[in-house]
Amino acid sequence: MSHGPAANHVSNTSPADAEASALLVQQLRAALGDDAVLTGAAIGERTVHMWSRRAVQALAIVRPRSTEDMATAMRLCHAVGQPMVAQGGRTGLTESHHTQAHEIVLSLERMNQIQEIDATDRTMVVQSGAILENLQQAADAAGLLLPLDLGGRGSCTIGGNIATNAGGNRVIRYGMTRESVLGLEVVLADGTVLSSMNRMIKNNAGYDLKQLFIGTEGTLGIVTRAVLRLREKPRSQDTMLVALADFAAVTALLKRADGALGGMLSAFEVLWNDFYCLTTSAPAPHTPPLPQHHAFYVLLETMGGDPATDRVRIEALLESALEDGLIADAVLAQNEAQRRSLWAIRDDVGQANRFTPMVAFDVSLRISAMDAYVSQVKANLQQRFPDTHHMFSFGHIADGNIHFAISVGDGSAAARQGIELSVYEPLRGIAGSVSAEHGIGLEKKAYLPMCRSEAEFATMRLLKRALDPKGLLNPGKIFDMEAASN
Amino acid sequence: MSHGPAANHVSNTSPADAEASALLVQQLRAALGDDAVLTGAAIGERTVHMWSRRAVQALAIVRPRSTEDMATAMRLCHAVGQPMVAQGGRTGLTESHHTQAHEIVLSLERMNQIQEIDATDRTMVVQSGAILENLQQAADAAGLLLPLDLGGRGSCTIGGNIATNAGGNRVIRYGMTRESVLGLEVVLADGTVLSSMNRMIKNNAGYDLKQLFIGTEGTLGIVTRAVLRLREKPRSQDTMLVALADFAAVTALLKRADGALGGMLSAFEVLWNDFYCLTTSAPAPHTPPLPQHHAFYVLLETMGGDPATDRVRIEALLESALEDGLIADAVLAQNEAQRRSLWAIRDDVGQANRFTPMVAFDVSLRISAMDAYVSQVKANLQQRFPDTHHMFSFGHIADGNIHFAISVGDGSAAARQGIELSVYEPLRGIAGSVSAEHGIGLEKKAYLPMCRSEAEFATMRLLKRALDPKGLLNPGKIFDMEAASN
Repeated sequence: MSHGPAANHVSNTSPADAEASALLVQQLRAALGDDAVLTGAAIGERTVHMWSRRAVQALAIVRPRSTEDMATAMRLCHAVGQPMVAQGGRTGLTESHHTQAHEIVLSLERMNQIQEIDATDRTMVVQSGAILENLQQAADAAGLLLPLDLGGRGSCTIGGNIATNAGGNRVIRYGMTRESVLGLEVVLADGTVLSSMNRMIKNNAGYDLKQLFIGTEGTLGIVTRAVLRLREKPRSQDTMLVALADFAAVTALLKRADGALGGMLSAFEVLWNDFYCLTTSAPAPHTPPLPQHHAFYVLLETMGGDPATDRVRIEALLESALEDGLIADAVLAQNEAQRRSLWAIRDDVGQANRFTPMVAFDVSLRISAMDAYVSQVKANLQQRFPDTHHMFSFGHIADGNIHFAISVGDGSAAARQGIELSVYEPLRGIAGSVSAEHGIGLEKKAYLPMCRSEAEFATMRLLKRALDPKGLLNPGKIFDMEAASN
Repeated sequence: MSHGPAANHVSNTSPADAEASALLVQQLRAALGDDAVLTGAAIGERTVHMWSRRAVQALAIVRPRSTEDMATAMRLCHAVGQPMVAQGGRTGLTESHHTQAHEIVLSLERMNQIQEIDATDRTMVVQSGAILENLQQAADAAGLLLPLDLGGRGSCTIGGNIATNAGGNRVIRYGMTRESVLGLEVVLADGTVLSSMNRMIKNNAGYDLKQLFIGTEGTLGIVTRAVLRLREKPRSQDTMLVALADFAAVTALLKRADGALGGMLSAFEVLWNDFYCLTTSAPAPHTPPLPQHHAFYVLLETMGGDPATDRVRIEALLESALEDGLIADAVLAQNEAQRRSLWAIRDDVGQANRFTPMVAFDVSLRISAMDAYVSQVKANLQQRFPDTHHMFSFGHIADGNIHFAISVGDGSAAARQGIELSVYEPLRGIAGSVSAEHGIGLEKKAYLPMCRSEAEFATMRLLKRALDPKGLLNPGKIFDMEAASN
């Protein structure tokens, strides 16, 4: 079988390869049923991402209904050396779920059941193809909270969230996806079912194997089921937008709010002036709840236990911060409509797409280095692109995470690289990361050596060789098996 | 070199082995300095545990001062196939740090520096031999909190906490040690330094390699430095003891308190009546703050942001729980002395040692199965030991963790096994764990197959072979490399 990149729908396999592929598809149909295996035109009906018009390419899309069927499919593929790529909601942002024409997609779309919710254990057992928002709603109906939340909630699957260790807006309080996963069931490259469906917060009986499969983008195994940790449902939710004069005030507010709110703080989203003006000026549909001349805006949210006294506490915090000059202005949502309209200003990232070409980033770095870093990125862009550039900055700064949307240059590969280097190069000296939460996939693979050492690459390859010696699972994603001369 | 168990101080090596060992010790002295290598009587001056009189056995105790020295020592050992065992504070409870006469101890005792505390980043960079309590105090002095806390704080090292993924009393709020580790530096079996000293809460750039070394008891690498996540220091701390009629009330109180306190709940320690009576009756030095006839007692603690309003909220919770009959009685500490005396009742586990023989346990299981499980353990003991048995039960039940101290039988190996089977056998059917937080080491190794599958053992062995192909790091701990017929 040829494993080179396929530029288009025309398969580049030899006649012998084609025959072997046809036989494998036949075996998969026989084992899983005809409706479990899509081929031909049914593949091309799907796009690689909801925001893309590019059609999926694959030898076949296999859609198991159960862990057993997934294991059977993977055993058959493994026997003939067939590359396999798991797909959930295809909402990932780094091409980690992309496929080539010779690869088989293992889609989790029919493994979407909630198998159990237990309000005493505060756990949920799910198949990995379940849509995140469905799980949130099921938890809510049981009086509980699945804290993981992100923009793709309506389309992304929990399996994809686990494979990418998804972050989102509530990490400051509840951690990344990793912290909400108690147990996992995974199928290994050879079809072995590895079940570690632990339900306890504490379990130190041997290696915690589930950690291997969280955030490794489907390169070490395919997650089929999970035990998720749920929390008590908050009884209050308060949302406010505050304006600040400089970044030192932003970090001081973070510390003060986190201390004074005693565990209630659940979001601390920072909008640089450029981003705030972007989403609160026409043609964006949002009006600015605070004047547009401040350097920084923070969208702060709490989840508490008592609506009346929580509100009193938050008002006291805002009052003292105003008195001390820590914040310049503030607005506190008085109802759900106002709450949503504040979040809309933060969430309307799509406004940046009015500028083309647009390149989006997802870096992380220590908070104390952020202010200087953002200035450095601007200076780098200015130097590389003397014309005006558009740069919109926002992020989950409590988690070390900044997002940029940058528009400059002629859209050429060289220009894109110039933008990328402007953002990534200053991370080297401060031990920053080229991906805070989206992962590496194919999109950031070339830049991974900027934030991981040779010893780290060697250890990643060691793990990959140990768990997937034939290199069949999501091949070529994150890193190549052969060390390049970086 | 012979790797069989050594029953006493007499080395069971052949003359050729003895010569090779002497040469290695000489090389270690030359490379690290004479004072870095203890041999002979200096080894026997140390006991395997502060509670034990058994002397440490080892070929040598090597005490590097730096990561570089640790790497050098391990390279030398690796070259000649020398088994190595890392030791921190020697406070572990499962013999995971125990050594045999032919093994070399790599002690972290001279790698105990705090290298950096950053109040903005809320991180601390430390060498792994630093004592936990020293780190807690340094964080506190910087206005921050290192939430990890456990009984061994004054002696245990952060490296040992990481190697065992230590738990403790605040896991419900802040997670296990794993959740407080942002970055790690590790030396691999062959002396390679693997540095992943990440400082950010979000970093999805490639595999999160540090997870491999957390909770794997020094079998895959030796932790030399860590970046720890710190939290804002709480401004209030409230501690109360409540009495309840049955286990259903305990789980209902957990849910109510966790919901109503909106993130403030930091400890929820359950004392069964047997344990409460043990530590509040003479000769124990504590007087019972609540009458001794209740079935359950819960020690509940909060850490909040505002002393005045937090107290009001807690009083309201207790009042409503009393009114509804959820709790039967309650006492709220009014000052630090009272707070300490409530904790002393929970912490005086040593009272159980008045009964001999005494066997201690550290199991975990889903909360919803606990009540029936404890009854089953009692029934099993009754059946195996018709004489009176003493069983004291307590635990961090929000985390799924129950501790037992059980005294019955004649102290023979057969009797001990009878006790162990009484506790462990009922875990099989309910997917419980033989170790919630202490780990496996040697002590629980025989019982690990009760809670991990063949596929899990195979994957653990795969990882061990990949990272330590010569099997030199903490050999024989957790599992054997050859699959036994379980």
